[in-house]
Amino acid sequence: MNPETLARLLIRCDDRPGIVAAATTFLYHHGANITELDQHSTDPTGGQLFMRLEFQTPALDLPRGALERAFADTVAAQYRMDWRMTYAADRPRMAILVSGHDHAAMELLWRWQRGELRVDVPCVISNHETLRSAVEAFGVPFHHVPFSAATQDAAEAQMQQLLVEARADFIVLARYMRILSAEFAAAWPAKIINIHHSFLPAFVGADPYRQAYERGVKIIGATAHYVTADLDQGPIIEQDTARVSHSDVVDDLRRLGRDLERQVLARAVRWHVEDRIIVDGNKTVVFA
Amino acid sequence: MNPETLARLLIRCDDRPGIVAAATTFLYHHGANITELDQHSTDPTGGQLFMRLEFQTPALDLPRGALERAFADTVAAQYRMDWRMTYAADRPRMAILVSGHDHAAMELLWRWQRGELRVDVPCVISNHETLRSAVEAFGVPFHHVPFSAATQDAAEAQMQQLLVEARADFIVLARYMRILSAEFAAAWPAKIINIHHSFLPAFVGADPYRQAYERGVKIIGATAHYVTADLDQGPIIEQDTARVSHSDVVDDLRRLGRDLERQVLARAVRWHVEDRIIVDGNKTVVFA
Amino acid sequence: MNPETLARLLIRCDDRPGIVAAATTFLYHHGANITELDQHSTDPTGGQLFMRLEFQTPALDLPRGALERAFADTVAAQYRMDWRMTYAADRPRMAILVSGHDHAAMELLWRWQRGELRVDVPCVISNHETLRSAVEAFGVPFHHVPFSAATQDAAEAQMQQLLVEARADFIVLARYMRILSAEFAAAWPAKIINIHHSFLPAFVGADPYRQAYERGVKIIGATAHYVTADLDQGPIIEQDTARVSHSDVVDDLRRLGRDLERQVLARAVRWHVEDRIIVDGNKTVVFA
Amino acid sequence: MNPETLARLLIRCDDRPGIVAAATTFLYHHGANITELDQHSTDPTGGQLFMRLEFQTPALDLPRGALERAFADTVAAQYRMDWRMTYAADRPRMAILVSGHDHAAMELLWRWQRGELRVDVPCVISNHETLRSAVEAFGVPFHHVPFSAATQDAAEAQMQQLLVEARADFIVLARYMRILSAEFAAAWPAKIINIHHSFLPAFVGADPYRQAYERGVKIIGATAHYVTADLDQGPIIEQDTARVSHSDVVDDLRRLGRDLERQVLARAVRWHVEDRIIVDGNKTVVFA
Repeated sequence: MNPETLARLLIRCDDRPGIVAAATTFLYHHGANITELDQHSTDPTGGQLFMRLEFQTPALDLPRGALERAFADTVAAQYRMDWRMTYAADRPRMAILVSGHDHAAMELLWRWQRGELRVDVPCVISNHETLRSAVEAFGVPFHHVPFSAATQDAAEAQMQQLLVEARADFIVLARYMRILSAEFAAAWPAKIINIHHSFLPAFVGADPYRQAYERGVKIIGATAHYVTADLDQGPIIEQDTARVSHSDVVDDLRRLGRDLERQVLARAVRWHVEDRIIVDGNKTVVFA
Repeated sequence: MNPETLARLLIRCDDRPGIVAAATTFLYHHGANITELDQHSTDPTGGQLFMRLEFQTPALDLPRGALERAFADTVAAQYRMDWRMTYAADRPRMAILVSGHDHAAMELLWRWQRGELRVDVPCVISNHETLRSAVEAFGVPFHHVPFSAATQDAAEAQMQQLLVEARADFIVLARYMRILSAEFAAAWPAKIINIHHSFLPAFVGADPYRQAYERGVKIIGATAHYVTADLDQGPIIEQDTARVSHSDVVDDLRRLGRDLERQVLARAVRWHVEDRIIVDGNKTVVFA
Repeated sequence: MNPETLARLLIRCDDRPGIVAAATTFLYHHGANITELDQHSTDPTGGQLFMRLEFQTPALDLPRGALERAFADTVAAQYRMDWRMTYAADRPRMAILVSGHDHAAMELLWRWQRGELRVDVPCVISNHETLRSAVEAFGVPFHHVPFSAATQDAAEAQMQQLLVEARADFIVLARYMRILSAEFAAAWPAKIINIHHSFLPAFVGADPYRQAYERGVKIIGATAHYVTADLDQGPIIEQDTARVSHSDVVDDLRRLGRDLERQVLARAVRWHVEDRIIVDGNKTVVFA
Repeated sequence: MNPETLARLLIRCDDRPGIVAAATTFLYHHGANITELDQHSTDPTGGQLFMRLEFQTPALDLPRGALERAFADTVAAQYRMDWRMTYAADRPRMAILVSGHDHAAMELLWRWQRGELRVDVPCVISNHETLRSAVEAFGVPFHHVPFSAATQDAAEAQMQQLLVEARADFIVLARYMRILSAEFAAAWPAKIINIHHSFLPAFVGADPYRQAYERGVKIIGATAHYVTADLDQGPIIEQDTARVSHSDVVDDLRRLGRDLERQVLARAVRWHVEDRIIVDGNKTVVFA
């Protein structure tokens, strides 16, 4: 399958009979070759339907814009769909925000460099200077934007400007240790992915590995989620866990946690980039 | 969703555009409400398409037989489909074959008794007498069929007769330690599920936990697969693994392995019962 | 190794040099053959030392009581140890408290019947009658003790009397859905094991699977812990997790959770029975 | 605990009573403060004992050499021990051999650069030029040694010379795709760690991810092992597994496998560096 000619249709609407038939018939009649279809229904009577289709575009009988207008006017209008079509050839632009811990950001840059993540990386922004050379070694522009309680408004304004100039499509907080304002979060709805270093909802707030150590848990976790105005409360995309024991001190938890964070964040970003996630209130539907 | 009015359509055919649209449109026009749809394509050009649909039957405009004939004459004929429709209200009849180790058989009976497995259990057959009372406590008939190299033909003939009388739909080898003949296996194609006590294809043959111990592996596994004429070579349905260490002796591996076997076999049987498995040569497509 | 002649020495004291040498030399001089030794030091300067030794008793030069007195007067006194010696031949007596959900209690009874758990089971107590026949089928006495807010004091008194008459050594709450009083908990310090149906400290309180579903987690868990006066806050013994997805409804989480609960509780009880757990404040040291 | 003043004593001998007491008493009398002790006995009567002690050296009454001679002449001689003492301040020198796939080598260099691996890295050797700049960016010398069937003898001789000049203590084959001769392997007994891209002993030989795909397994794995003259047969150090499904093609298995390989190899190297592994014939005892 050629990834350059791949398109995706994501749909959300009230569930009722005939939707799958309508959407697949529309695509078939316009020359799309469906290669993957996932659907999820919260309840076939009175619930919501979520659907994701992948299709190949070479034999389409209409150009993109016309196809989308045709879909909007017919199937989408009939079933009152919330929907989007995306094209794998349009690589989304991923900006990374990071503080002092580099492992999560390096993991993303590394996978991007290897071709594992089909994105462009227009910039990395940090509230520290420390990672400049490591980032620039990947050929990625690095911006230092200091961030303190006193300068938060100016810092966020500066970051917003940098993100706009970079034409960023989405933002990854790769262990960015400052709390962004509700306004900033609201400007990027379901467009900011954060990696939280614990198994949410356990251990919200600061220093979760220390919290986990103090509680004496036998398992630690990491959680990737979309950022909303409520800290640590946004829709969860992916989680994973690892065993620890009484002999692991806080630094061991941090070390084991770094490996979890890298893996969990990489999966979440991959799914976001491949348009596999639909937000459903405070949850996510992930067609992984 | 009412499980009693649930039906499933499983399809396998050469992949080409229009199949999903045709199948979903057919069901929609006959009043079926599709609640789940999974598909898998080995290659959109020249490959095979596998599809599974779940739908609710109350609003169907045709009785079962007529619906199936209509599907056969139209969609299935057009796309040369290998297909089947099944109805959750028809509980499949699961016969269990077991030898001396009871854990796998007990796990199935227990889940069945709790209502977790939507099957009927017409009989348990064993080459030992030891489990009679444990089985009969579940209200399930128990048959003792001795089985030795010398008596294999007669034993298999007797079991075949018992299985036919019991109107068994499929058979689970829940640690049945005799090797069935190729003829017996051929009489139940993709209808015999075996639990092998290792991570196949490692450690085929006898006493795999001892083999694993001798090799010094750090992980053990269990494998549920359909039985074919080739011992331990049939299509794999499900596998799982668990960590072991140098301090675990063979009996520890057996104990840890029992837990794996129970879990893996239970999942495989559940998927078989819910018609989530399509055999593809020596592999399985599992819409779990 | 003969489990019938196995003894264990568990030690907790302030850490300082010489303790391991003193304990092992004492045992050696009295004819004990040490077969396993684990130690854990929270900090070699100013921390606590936890140690567990397994040894074979056939060549001991003193009977049990004399050996323990000798240890108390010499090594234990010198290092101000909190310690205990136990003997595998003395099977601990495990009482089970259960409400309507039977899976955790059945799992323990089943493992006990198979010989996997070296305990005696003097009784099962329930606030419902429903499990009487299932329990009595194992040859275990079943007591029905109704328990409501109004009758809590009388119910707990009756249970205490039953437990004393049964000479119970420890209690397992195998999905016992009543909250025991702080007084009851205090009467059995580090002697009551509860299985909580979530990954603590997430989802404390009632109906944790529904809480997990509402939060949209991608992983669920189960936690075995000792019961203290603080509900769901006691020292954690063991935890495990399993993946779930957007397609799993609350009942799926409950079903998947039952499997976790059975496994986690079985491991915790096994470690308790084998004296592998030392409580350290609100944590546990588990020499698994 | 200060890692710079940490020492380790590893012991292997025939098991009999008194060994633990003798070793710990010796260390205590010479001022060592034991902070960790692990032991493993294959059988207390007639088996082998494996033991690892960590101790702090600041209060030792003898310098290193004298302490080792004293131990050799007393305890080690009495119990005919195979033993070694190592000092964490002596960072072992790790040489890396790699071919075209860089993920495993980069993971090790990255962890080393972050301070997670307490080693020196004197050189990386590859049969390709491709990774030169990536390696040199870490400040590590890179040597290109072409390797073909015709040039194997010369290539191995050149590598041996480079390894000697680099004063390498051990070698990691981080996806080095050439088969080294039995002579080369024999020159570095239990000093070469290989990452095999499958769950050994399944899928030995070439292209194991394709083999796994063809077999239709539901789980893939990776295995770190010491290299011996028998290809893929050396003592296993560590393994891990990950789930795959029918929808994963060979490239997906390779991608998922890379993550496994990085994790498994990193753990194995860490344990080797911390002297946590004792080889026992074709197995390992890992005091992790």
